[in-house]
Amino acid sequence: MERLPGFRDFYPEPLPHQDVWSADARQFIFEKWRLVAKRYGFREYDGPPLEPLELFTTKSGAEIVGQLYNFTDKGDRAISLRPEMTPTLARMVAAHERNYKKPIKWFAIPQLFRYERAQKGRLREHFQFNADLIGETDPAADAELIALLIDTLRAFGLKSEDFVIRLSSRNAWHEFFKHGGGDNAHEYDFFQAIDKLERNPEESEKKLSELCFPLAKVNEFIQAGVPTTDLQTILDNLAARGLRDFVKVDYQVIRGLAYYTGVVFEAFDRKGEFRAIAGGGRYNNLVKLISGGKVDLPALGFGMGDVVLCELLKERGLLPKFDTPMDVFVIIEDEVLRTESLKLIHELRAAGYAVEYSLTPAKSDKQFKRAQELKVAHTARVENDAYVRVRNLKTREEIVTGFAGVANHLG
Amino acid sequence: MERLPGFRDFYPEPLPHQDVWSADARQFIFEKWRLVAKRYGFREYDGPPLEPLELFTTKSGAEIVGQLYNFTDKGDRAISLRPEMTPTLARMVAAHERNYKKPIKWFAIPQLFRYERAQKGRLREHFQFNADLIGETDPAADAELIALLIDTLRAFGLKSEDFVIRLSSRNAWHEFFKHGGGDNAHEYDFFQAIDKLERNPEESEKKLSELCFPLAKVNEFIQAGVPTTDLQTILDNLAARGLRDFVKVDYQVIRGLAYYTGVVFEAFDRKGEFRAIAGGGRYNNLVKLISGGKVDLPALGFGMGDVVLCELLKERGLLPKFDTPMDVFVIIEDEVLRTESLKLIHELRAAGYAVEYSLTPAKSDKQFKRAQELKVAHTARVENDAYVRVRNLKTREEIVTGFAGVANHLG
Repeated sequence: MERLPGFRDFYPEPLPHQDVWSADARQFIFEKWRLVAKRYGFREYDGPPLEPLELFTTKSGAEIVGQLYNFTDKGDRAISLRPEMTPTLARMVAAHERNYKKPIKWFAIPQLFRYERAQKGRLREHFQFNADLIGETDPAADAELIALLIDTLRAFGLKSEDFVIRLSSRNAWHEFFKHGGGDNAHEYDFFQAIDKLERNPEESEKKLSELCFPLAKVNEFIQAGVPTTDLQTILDNLAARGLRDFVKVDYQVIRGLAYYTGVVFEAFDRKGEFRAIAGGGRYNNLVKLISGGKVDLPALGFGMGDVVLCELLKERGLLPKFDTPMDVFVIIEDEVLRTESLKLIHELRAAGYAVEYSLTPAKSDKQFKRAQELKVAHTARVENDAYVRVRNLKTREEIVTGFAGVANHLG
Repeated sequence: MERLPGFRDFYPEPLPHQDVWSADARQFIFEKWRLVAKRYGFREYDGPPLEPLELFTTKSGAEIVGQLYNFTDKGDRAISLRPEMTPTLARMVAAHERNYKKPIKWFAIPQLFRYERAQKGRLREHFQFNADLIGETDPAADAELIALLIDTLRAFGLKSEDFVIRLSSRNAWHEFFKHGGGDNAHEYDFFQAIDKLERNPEESEKKLSELCFPLAKVNEFIQAGVPTTDLQTILDNLAARGLRDFVKVDYQVIRGLAYYTGVVFEAFDRKGEFRAIAGGGRYNNLVKLISGGKVDLPALGFGMGDVVLCELLKERGLLPKFDTPMDVFVIIEDEVLRTESLKLIHELRAAGYAVEYSLTPAKSDKQFKRAQELKVAHTARVENDAYVRVRNLKTREEIVTGFAGVANHLG
């Protein structure tokens, strides 16, 4: 029986083959995400992986349904597996915002779903680190969030040579559009044309000239890249933290989603070999929209998926191997000593060590071979009811000690 | 907009009210599960939250569909959200078992789903710690798994006064049934009657007498509770680890699921206030069944849900409060010092501390109040470009130090 197309199985390392995903690498990535978020004072939350379809169409319009993993449940409800976390966040914040001091700084690591035509390598799910800051309009909030994004990537060993945050602002483009005589009703079309400029330059040029914005003028604005006051504040703030090298103003970035309202940004590898590592921005109207006008809070956030990050880390040699899961292997040379050995195993585990042993009788050289395969640092053999022989497999040093002393020799 | 009935939102502590679940407590529980599993040499895996419906009907028959959260997807596939992890595990093991040394010791923390009539407090999802041991028939494997279950509960501070593992065996009942002249064709009905003996004694008595097993004889067998050879081996093994007090033979336990083949067990609170904390047993035929006969491996496992565990820990006062998420609050007394303060904040976070501060200008007594609310251990105020004043909020001691020295004073 096969798993569904576009879904992943996560196996322990060493992996059977390249097409299988590592549960260890996934956990490694999740732990780094959590670690850095907590240092920044972001608190974890989560919502259901399923939501009423309406939550997503309210935010993105009915046309989003074509991309959703949606269905009708047994109670005849229109349901969708969540394609993104922000609507759930907005719902949750709107329900209980009075309980939390502003600004609210929250993160989550949801699994997200979409129903795209299943192509080779095209996934229908991924995990995404979501960090959001709610209740603060000051650009200091934008800087705090972007600093978190930079430090998260740095926590994996990525440096300013490896990635850059391309920082932009819808406000800058709004001013450009207004001063160029653009009609408010067409502003969103204009934003869409800018968004597609890199991927589909010809179509965008055509669209822009229809809107009476010659490509040359647009390119001139992008090349000048003069920061708005807010962007300059963010750049200065990041400079104070020593993070100026990780960010550049780049007005080519505008982000496709309709709901962004101010600063927007994307993280890319400098060599341009991968899709965006992360993206985000301000969405000051979304909480109000989702709450039906009841709660009005400015907000901004970013999302970072596990798939592109994992590919990038692999390519840069920054994804460790997770093939040494055990600390100690207890070798049982004589079945007479199994009871004493189980006692030792239990004591070492209680002391925090990862301990493996042979569940059934086996020749001691076979047990030793297994210990080597597991790359344990030490073996321990119970000699009698009082003494244990501990061997350091690297230095080959051996010592004999009482049961209580074993842990002292495991380093 | 409301979340779907039977689903949970997880919020950061302190919580808005009792009906809301704690994301911090959830993470605390997950981390303990992972910690103990790793000490025992269990490796993490995960599969998709959705599987072909057939995976579950193959294992449990078509009647299971009534309880499943199943639906038809856009590609006209019969899909179900996973109601349990074991079929996915069996599928994954069967696909790549040759890559892994036996016995395979794996764990997962899946979210599981069912579609029950939504009653107050009745959930349609929960998280479950699943640990399984595959490829070993020896009762030493059963003992290893049960020891993991006991130590997992002990890791939360639960003691032998708090919980007990009720250990039983389908083989014992099989012998009883055979010696009592039972007809093979009715053995499963007999097992079902035993399973319902505690919850529905009258119906079970009727059923048993139909099968020519008088209740008195059944009760006598239960009360005698003579361990089978395998159960005695497991008890001795657990005794060697010092865990004998956590387990008792109790033939009332037989587990309802058709697929168990040998030892079965359930963990209960001693006071009997809660539903089962965990349950499991041997299922030696499942991998063969799921793999269509291609792979034949004996196996056993258990599942422990987050909901009952969470209730029990709360009731016993063993669930900590998670209301001190931050280590240090950096107070910015003068906006002239914001740049230097951001530098300090960044350095402290880089050193591993959880640091909070006011994003925007605020009176310093308001900042101090916020520091107290966050229950930080220390505040730090930048005095000038060279010195920082660090205050221990417990001892009220203050010291002035250079930037590089701050971390030394945070303990």
